[in-house]
This record gives sequence, C-alpha cells and structure tokens, in this order.
Amino acid sequence: MKNYKTLETVFSTINDLEQSQAVLHWDMATMMPEGGAKNRASQLATLQSISHAILADEGIEELINSAFKDKSKMNAWQKSNLQIISKKFQHTNAVPKDLLKKLTLEGANCELVWRKARAENDFKSLAPHLQKVVDLVREVAKHKSQALECSPYDALLDQYDPGRTTKQLDEVFSQLDEFLPDFIEKVISKQESEKPVVNFKGEFDVPKQKELALQISQMIGFDISKGRFDESLHPFCGGYKNDVRITTRYNEDDFSSAIMGVIHETGHAMYEANLPDDWSNQPVGQSLGMSVHESQSLIMEMQACRSREFLKFLFPLVKKTFAGKGRGWSFENFYRNYTKVQRSLIRVDADEVTYPAHVALRYRIEQYLIAGEMEVADLPEAWSQGMEKYLGVKPDSDKDGCMQDIHWMDGSFGYFPSYTIGAIYAAQQFEAAKKDNDKILPSLEKGKFEPLLAWLNENIHSKASSLTSDKLMQKATGSDLDVECYKNHLIARYLDN
Amino acid sequence: MKNYKTLETVFSTINDLEQSQAVLHWDMATMMPEGGAKNRASQLATLQSISHAILADEGIEELINSAFKDKSKMNAWQKSNLQIISKKFQHTNAVPKDLLKKLTLEGANCELVWRKARAENDFKSLAPHLQKVVDLVREVAKHKSQALECSPYDALLDQYDPGRTTKQLDEVFSQLDEFLPDFIEKVISKQESEKPVVNFKGEFDVPKQKELALQISQMIGFDISKGRFDESLHPFCGGYKNDVRITTRYNEDDFSSAIMGVIHETGHAMYEANLPDDWSNQPVGQSLGMSVHESQSLIMEMQACRSREFLKFLFPLVKKTFAGKGRGWSFENFYRNYTKVQRSLIRVDADEVTYPAHVALRYRIEQYLIAGEMEVADLPEAWSQGMEKYLGVKPDSDKDGCMQDIHWMDGSFGYFPSYTIGAIYAAQQFEAAKKDNDKILPSLEKGKFEPLLAWLNENIHSKASSLTSDKLMQKATGSDLDVECYKNHLIARYLDN
Repeated sequence: MKNYKTLETVFSTINDLEQSQAVLHWDMATMMPEGGAKNRASQLATLQSISHAILADEGIEELINSAFKDKSKMNAWQKSNLQIISKKFQHTNAVPKDLLKKLTLEGANCELVWRKARAENDFKSLAPHLQKVVDLVREVAKHKSQALECSPYDALLDQYDPGRTTKQLDEVFSQLDEFLPDFIEKVISKQESEKPVVNFKGEFDVPKQKELALQISQMIGFDISKGRFDESLHPFCGGYKNDVRITTRYNEDDFSSAIMGVIHETGHAMYEANLPDDWSNQPVGQSLGMSVHESQSLIMEMQACRSREFLKFLFPLVKKTFAGKGRGWSFENFYRNYTKVQRSLIRVDADEVTYPAHVALRYRIEQYLIAGEMEVADLPEAWSQGMEKYLGVKPDSDKDGCMQDIHWMDGSFGYFPSYTIGAIYAAQQFEAAKKDNDKILPSLEKGKFEPLLAWLNENIHSKASSLTSDKLMQKATGSDLDVECYKNHLIARYLDN
Repeated sequence: MKNYKTLETVFSTINDLEQSQAVLHWDMATMMPEGGAKNRASQLATLQSISHAILADEGIEELINSAFKDKSKMNAWQKSNLQIISKKFQHTNAVPKDLLKKLTLEGANCELVWRKARAENDFKSLAPHLQKVVDLVREVAKHKSQALECSPYDALLDQYDPGRTTKQLDEVFSQLDEFLPDFIEKVISKQESEKPVVNFKGEFDVPKQKELALQISQMIGFDISKGRFDESLHPFCGGYKNDVRITTRYNEDDFSSAIMGVIHETGHAMYEANLPDDWSNQPVGQSLGMSVHESQSLIMEMQACRSREFLKFLFPLVKKTFAGKGRGWSFENFYRNYTKVQRSLIRVDADEVTYPAHVALRYRIEQYLIAGEMEVADLPEAWSQGMEKYLGVKPDSDKDGCMQDIHWMDGSFGYFPSYTIGAIYAAQQFEAAKKDNDKILPSLEKGKFEPLLAWLNENIHSKASSLTSDKLMQKATGSDLDVECYKNHLIARYLDN
C-alpha cells in the first residue's frame, strides 16, 4: 500500500492548494479592494499551475499504476479514492500545458470583454473572443476524449459531473422537451385564471433581511462557528468543510430573492459541512460533482422551502420581520409569489417550471458548438429560434439573449446540464426522504429541518465521492435518474393544487 | 543574463506564494471562523513548504552561481536582487528541512500553551515547551551562522533585519543604557511637577472612532481602493502593494489608542503602498527589513503625529467627533495625554521614552539564551532583575513579566531590537526631512502629509531593498545609525518643552 499512501500525501498537498484558492476566490468576491485584482489573478494562476505540476509529474502515473496492483488490499473508500485520483491524472495529463494556459488566458480576457460587451449589447465585439475560446475548448475536448475514451462533449461533462454522458442527457432532455411546452402552457393558464398575484412592495430594511436570512440558514443547520455569512454581487457558497462561506445579495425592494438565495446556498453549505471528517483532505472526501451539489441547494430551495408546509412557517416570520400589513400580506398570496410561473428571457430569474427549458436550450447549443456544427456567429439566431421553441418568447437584444450567461466566456462548456440533473435529483431525494421518514414534512411546518438533514446526511452528504452519482442515487432513492419523479413533483405543485 | 532571468521567474512564483500566505494570514486574524483553524494551519504550512522546496532545489544554487558571472551586465537593482536572492537561498539551505519543520511544530504548540499559561500565570507549564523552542532555535542559529559566516545571534538578526549585527546593537544599547535611566527619571520628575494629566473618560462610540481613524489614515495617504481597513484582536498591517490591509482594535473607553494605532499601521501601509511598481514581484522590490518598516510606522506615530503641530490639528477634530467638553478637553491636556511618560511593566503599553528600555532588556536576555548562557528556567529571575535595572519596577507575576510577549514562543528571536532601531531611524528621517523641506511641520498643523510623504517616498519607499539599511539611511539622512539624533528628539520633546 506504500504507493497508494504516497498518493494520499500528494493529494493532501493538492487539497491544501485548492482550499487556499477557495479562500482567495472568496476574498476576491467579498473583501478584496479594486487594486488587488491583478495580483490576485497571478496568485491564483500560480497556485493552479503548482497543483498542475504536482499532478503532471511523471512519478504520479507510476504511483497510480503500482497502487492499482494493491487494490485487493484496499477498502471501498480507498478504491474510490484511487479511481478518482486516476481520473484527475487523466484529465490533467490529457491536455498539453500550453493549451490549458492559452485557454485560461483567452477565457479571462473573453470574460473581461463580455462584461463590457453585454452592458453595451455589443455581440459583434464579443464574438471573435468567444470564438477563440470555443476553438480552444474544442481542442481541449478532443485531447480529453482520446484519454478518457469518450466523445469530446462527454469529456467536458465529466469535468463537472464525473460519469455524466450525452446519452443520459439526451434521454432526459427529450423527455422534458415532450413534457415542458404543454405543461408550461397549462400552468400559466391555470395561474391566469386565478386571483392575480400581488407583488410585495415597499422598502425592506437590509439589516432586517440579513438577520432573518441568517436565522433561517441557522434553522436549516448552518453553523456560523464553522462558516461565514457575507454579501457579494453574485451569491455563492465557497470555502470548505469547517469553514463554509455563504454569500448573498440584498435588494431593498424585495426580500424574497435574498431569502430564497440564502436557502439555496445553505443547501450547498450543508453538503460541504457534513462531508466525512476522515476523508476531508482526499478527493474521495469531496463533494461528488455539480449535479449532486446542485441537488443539495435545490432540495432546500425548491423542495423543502417552497413546500406549502415550510412557507406556512415562513410567512408569519416574514410578516412580523417587516411589519407587513394590508394588501398582499395573506398566506395564499405569499405562496403564490413563491410559485409564480412565467415565460421569461433570463435564466437566473426563471422560476422552477421554466428553468429546465432555459437549460435545454443551452445544452443543445453547447453540443453543436463543441461538435463544430455551429460557430459563435450563429449564436444570436440560434438563441432566438431556441427561445421561441422552448419558451415561446424571443429576446429583442443579445444582452438578454445569448450574452446573458458568464459560463461559456471562460470556457465552461458542459456545466449547464447539471442545473437540471440537480433539480431532478432533488425531486427524487425529497420523495424518497418523505417515504423513509414521514416526520419530514410536518417538521418543516414547524421550521425544523433535523429529520430532512438526517436523511440527507445519511444518504448523500456522508457518502461524499465514494460512489458514482448513479449508484448514490440508486441507493438513496431506488433509481439512478428519474425524470418521471421530477415531472410528478412539478405537476403536483403547479397543477394539482 | 538567462540564468538571472530564470531566477526572476522563480522568485515571481515565490512572491505569489508569499502574497497568498499574506491573504490567508489576514483572513485568519480578521474573518476566519473558529472552525477553520486546523485547515488554515495546514494550508499555510503547505504553501510555506512549497516555497521552501522551490528555493531548496539544487538547480537554484547553480543558477545563482552562473548569474553572478553576469553581474557586470546588470543594473544596480538587478545586482541587489541577485544579492538578496543569494542570501535567501543561504538562509533556506543552511538548515536541515526536518529541523525547520520541528521548530514550526514546536513553535506553534508552544504558542498554544503560552496562551493558556499566560492567562493562568503558569510559567511552570510553559517552561519545558519554551525550552524546546530555544533549543531548536539555537540549532537553527548554529547552522545559519556557518552558512552566513557570522555569529549565531547575528544569523538570527539577519532574518528580520538583513545586515544587522550584534556589534552595532551593542553600541546602540550601551549608549541607551547610559542615557535612559537618568533621562526617564528627569522626565518623570518634570511631568510630576506639572499640572496632573486628566484622563479622557467616557464612552467613545466605536463607529465614530472608526470613521475618524479612517479619515486620518486617508489624510496620511491611505488609499482604500488599494487596501482594507478592518478590526482584529492584535492590530497589524498585512497584504501587499495594491492591497494593503490595516487592522485596529477599538476600545469604547478610550479613543486614543485606536487613533494612534491606526496612524502606526498607516505608516507601515504607506511603505508597502509606495514600493516601486517595476519590482513588485521580486525580492528587491519588497520592504527592506523590520527596522526600516518600523521606522515608517514610528515616523508617523511618534514623529509626525505626536508633534505639537499635528496634535494641534487633531485636537479640535477629536473634540468635535466625540462632542468633548468640560474637564480635560483642553489642547494642553490632550498633548500631555499623548506624551505622558511612566515606568510600566508591559512593553506594548509603554510610552515612547520607556519603550527602548523594555527592548534593551529583551535584547540582552535573547543574547544569553541563544549563546546558552541562560536557560528558560532562569527567565523569571532575570526578568525581574532586568526590569528593576532598566525601568525601576518589578513585575509581581510572570504574566506581566517574562510571559507577556508572543515573539519568543514561536522562535522569533532577534526580532525585538528592530523596534528600537526603527525608532532611531524614524528620528533621523524626520530630522532630515524637516531640514530638506521646511514645509513639513507647518503642513502637519493643517493635517497635510504630502510634503512628508513625498520625502519618504523619494528617500525610503521608492528604494525598496535596492540598498542596505546602512546605505539607505546614509543617503537619506547623512548617517547610517545615529543614537544622538534620537536622544536629541527625546530631550527636545520631553525636557525642553
């Protein structure tokens, strides 16, 4: 086992480097002054390249090969750890270092250009930069596809969601393609036939919003002695076990987005916080991938906390906090605010029902782009057609169309599908959890999350990366990926209520 | 020049690692939740050991030796850079890696033990741990003394203050030994013969203190778009050029310490902020050493901002901020509060006049300890005798005696003298600056720091580490180290006023 143990030491060093980068990223988004940007980019690039150099060392391949010979002596976690280490080695060594560096540079540059171009709705000035990024990602994907023996797009998917395949996703999205257009139409008609939703208007004191958001986060289980709670332009959950850092953005005119935003990030945070102690410095002890991570935020935001039960608990709390009175301050209206469905242009503002349609569009376009069947110049037209097809609305600017998301700018192709797989996983998990413990829903009505967290901890969090996503979900819910369960959840909430 | 250029690349990487550590340290002191401590220690140790490994690589010695052959082609900054690089290599490679690791571990442990032992005034439980640290530092010093061809204690001094020697320090402290006891006595007698100082009493709103402190810091020149301003238990200045981070501690009962604390840290910050752009990722572009760094904080705190001129500007500002009225709120009393001298037990609370006596005691004891002429068990007695001799007061507990400072606990022997050398440098610089520009003092009376900063920038900040301390001071002030100038400053402020 000597070789395997040496690998553990190497990956403990890489873990320290990754955690250092996590703190530097968090600091960049929350604390760093303007002047610090250039140095920070250099620090992050250096830590990244040191990690890369450690992993690309010739000795590592030998260690991995020798370690595999001792597999019979390993326990299940050690085996999984070695498997992940081997995969990481493949990902790292498949791509020439210069190519990766070029992509990092072009990606950072394209992101900068994008910030300005989006603000000015200037697709023309973005296009050549984005095309460069796409070209480089195609090259990276080709290299990785050879090493991993899969299609180029599958190789990209694997970076964010180990083991995810186009085959699986095609099935999921074709089921959703069949289901969604008609379903969206029905839900909107139903909601239009009902009493109109009254928006909550007024000024919602930000310190009060913060206090309430933190209170709810702690109710879910967030431990402030092992984490932080701050503000940033784009909400995220950073850090790592024992130091998990949630951020939110507050809006004086609207309390609802900050509260649900914090609930979402708390879902991510609980996953990180409950990862097993014993493996915290090894790859197998980390979160499994973006789909499972997203399932943890969405099981909180969409399943538990948009349930009638929890909203019944939340409503009086919100009402009291903001001394709400008069028009709109009824539970029914509160519930309807949180479950309103509409055809809209912007993914990040989309509701639970239309969200997967936004993702489906991006999934199709990504595939075409990576396969070389579409070029960046074709994006505006394809976007327009796709929006019409999937959502029945057309953007009247690229700003609100193909330029709205940051993901592609730095080359993150293959990431989008995990939003929808995460939503499906969340539905499956919540269904299974309720079946396993009938106290979960009634507890939410009292603001108690312990029964749900206990289920998640046992079935998801504590497993970390010791199982594949398919096996994890199979064990936890009885099915690896079940679109029907997700559809049933949507139908139950939006039509059968 | 290829070899030299390669060294620059290597040191740019090391610079990124050092800056990353600086952010992680700052975060640890200001932001990190309790739970993050263990991981942070591991991250810092890993980054440190990566730096060490890069520097200890066999190839580096070859590069340095080859680069020296190209010295004739180099400009002055490149030559200094190579010199410093060579010295860093010597420091790093003089000591066996295992010994350094042991010292890091024992040091961290001793510091932990110290926190508890000091609180409980329990020297006995600290002693064996501190003795271990002293033993290891002796070993480190011996190794370094061979590599650097100097005495063991000089090798330790050199870590904090490149080029500083016992010979120089012995001269300084023997002059101070002659001067101080009698001088302290005279100043105290004089102050006792005057109207008693009225302490400012009351509650001083912390947000108001913060606002005022930041205002003064910005007045000096601190640029918040290239830095931060936060709170921490122990005030410090962290970060680096373009991202300099000041911290302070506020006390509701007393505004004076926070304001002078911020002025002190702003002095450090201005040095970092004004280091030359062109060399910011190389050793020659960094600050010169602890003595010059301390001179920059003390020229602000002790020279500029304790001058009658600046205090005349500050007094009405403070009075207005806290709506001060009645007893004590006169300029004369304000001035006297900031120049009160007393024999006291605690170094960090000591005034300008007695401070060097505290340092002298530590300097003597350090020398004995490192030379093996004293052991940790002898500390309480030696401290007691020393305090009596230097300050005429005796601690009635080890807590307020030999256990008061953190420095020795992690093995930082050789650091203390830089406080006093810094104070002397500050006096020399202020004297020279006033001679070079007679607008400096009158400007302070208007809260204008530009003339002083311009002098510091030209003579100190912009030089970074391109000169030795002796040469820097010689050029800037006409003398490498001038205790007389310092004594004259003290006499002028405390006797001839």
